Amino acid sequence: MNCKTGKQTVRFENPPSIIETASIVGKKEGEGPLSEYFDYILEEDSWGEKSWEKSESKIIKSTAELAIRKASLTDSDIDYILAGDLINQCIGANYAMKDFSIPFFGLYGACSTMTESLTLGSMLIGGGFGERALCITSSHFCTAEKQFRFPLEYGGQRTPTSQWTVTGSGCAIISSSGRGPYITHVTPGKIIDMGIKDVNNMGAAMAPAAADTLITHFHDTGRKPSDYDMILTGDLGVIGSDILCDLMNKQGYDIYSCHKDAGKMIYDIQNQDVHAGGSGCGCCASVLCGYVLKQMKSGKINNVLVAATGALMNTMTIQQGSTIPSIAHAAAISNEQKEIVNN
Amino acid sequence: MNCKTGKQTVRFENPPSIIETASIVGKKEGEGPLSEYFDYILEEDSWGEKSWEKSESKIIKSTAELAIRKASLTDSDIDYILAGDLINQCIGANYAMKDFSIPFFGLYGACSTMTESLTLGSMLIGGGFGERALCITSSHFCTAEKQFRFPLEYGGQRTPTSQWTVTGSGCAIISSSGRGPYITHVTPGKIIDMGIKDVNNMGAAMAPAAADTLITHFHDTGRKPSDYDMILTGDLGVIGSDILCDLMNKQGYDIYSCHKDAGKMIYDIQNQDVHAGGSGCGCCASVLCGYVLKQMKSGKINNVLVAATGALMNTMTIQQGSTIPSIAHAAAISNEQKEIVNN
Repeated sequence: MNCKTGKQTVRFENPPSIIETASIVGKKEGEGPLSEYFDYILEEDSWGEKSWEKSESKIIKSTAELAIRKASLTDSDIDYILAGDLINQCIGANYAMKDFSIPFFGLYGACSTMTESLTLGSMLIGGGFGERALCITSSHFCTAEKQFRFPLEYGGQRTPTSQWTVTGSGCAIISSSGRGPYITHVTPGKIIDMGIKDVNNMGAAMAPAAADTLITHFHDTGRKPSDYDMILTGDLGVIGSDILCDLMNKQGYDIYSCHKDAGKMIYDIQNQDVHAGGSGCGCCASVLCGYVLKQMKSGKINNVLVAATGALMNTMTIQQGSTIPSIAHAAAISNEQKEIVNN
Repeated sequence: MNCKTGKQTVRFENPPSIIETASIVGKKEGEGPLSEYFDYILEEDSWGEKSWEKSESKIIKSTAELAIRKASLTDSDIDYILAGDLINQCIGANYAMKDFSIPFFGLYGACSTMTESLTLGSMLIGGGFGERALCITSSHFCTAEKQFRFPLEYGGQRTPTSQWTVTGSGCAIISSSGRGPYITHVTPGKIIDMGIKDVNNMGAAMAPAAADTLITHFHDTGRKPSDYDMILTGDLGVIGSDILCDLMNKQGYDIYSCHKDAGKMIYDIQNQDVHAGGSGCGCCASVLCGYVLKQMKSGKINNVLVAATGALMNTMTIQQGSTIPSIAHAAAISNEQKEIVNN
């Protein structure tokens, strides 16, 4: 039987397998340190489309097609798509997915959407409701700047705490059968609001949500940080990552050595002018599906806990003086289908 | 075992129960024909808040609190919240749910979100991943007009095909145990795009998605329209409902007599100046949770197939000349936990 273990963690009786991944990223992301791991790198970020929104839809659609093709599957082999993005009304995913003849669930978890998708997708497959689910998210620097900040043409100066939205998409196909890596546990998060109002410091707003979900995961499972080769967050960036590690340390969890943040990994922070690092739901998605899961498939690392974080505000709530509520969903991914044994 | 039956329908081995519902609606909705069925009717639609967005959040939060209280439960009895709304970045639900200490999944399915929530929620509970899920959506006339159409102060004239966004929220608590009604089947929908571009005629854009999901449901289950006392759509309105019934009839499914649309039920169409009827994800939610499920609990009707439809565009895609992709998710709800036997 699948079961809840502890307060809010699910342990799968038959952990679903991540059978295939795909990732497509923009030019700048392709110039970063993870360049060689992405499946395709755009030469320029409009990708021949007439609007940034259409470009983002093309990226997410192409990433899904690529994952299906790499897995030697067709649309009819996929039971569910779970997808989302950052654009108003999630049009990135909605317009991308209209050409697939596959039942579709639209999600909005801001930059946490990739692990929201993996969490729900693995429950649908682990619950016996189908054979395969396609989990995918995207973000695009130009659609995000236009919508959340300033028109690109304005050339606004960025604060040192601000982050750079990743242009890219990552896709994972989850299956009820197949070789690992496997999703063994998921810990869906609660909304956490510590009163941060600075929309140019998202890392600080989101770090407490990551800490809450990670600590809950350790409580629920009896695991400890050293049970994982990597604890991956989505886009806390330089500042949020420091806050997370300190928050965890205060609660007795030392993650300084095993913590990685996709927002710090995808760019050369010193030389690519991205201030506090990458962000966007394409950040965790492309780093997880492009780099981390490939490292797992090749056996270089074996146990990863991934927790993408999302800031659940919009521009209007900030103008109205509201705080920034945040959330993080976590998934434990292992090359072993059986449980890690704790002493 | 839970199983897929046919192409895209799930049949639950142990159908989850809808143990409690709650609904709160605005002043205009409270003046309509379903007035007596809603739990609470606002005296004025700001509900004492300083912005329409904060008012919508208060409505959704209060509806969730009411459902939990009516069920004699507390936050810790609920395993998951699945919620969404129409405002950019789903801030209606996000800010409403930050004060609940419950794992949260944000959904975006436009006006289909209530049945997206019921579909995913029943799979989480039916899959054994928890005891109870809270499914909720909202919409607000004033947040929707401001965001999707014109500032209220502009006083723009509406076309005859346009619909009136419902101010309201509906909530259903799904449980692994308890008396009926039960969710016996769910049929998640695919995105359908028939090329409609008129954003003032959403019913026409969404009707083909409803037809696709309903016909798939009948194919997959071997059921026929007469197996249901009511086939309820969310907000097709007057025009979309006629299109749906005609589309179904052409495919051999006569639903003229058993089809009801929440957008036609919630207002007195002739006298409340709502043109083609109600819309918004609070429309299906409040009519389903306020009226239909109460009719089922009292035994006046026993079998309902509900399919809310959503138009997955935003204002920018319309400005960019794109079509309106749509989706519908369906849930079969019955007072009997066992299967309807077909001849």
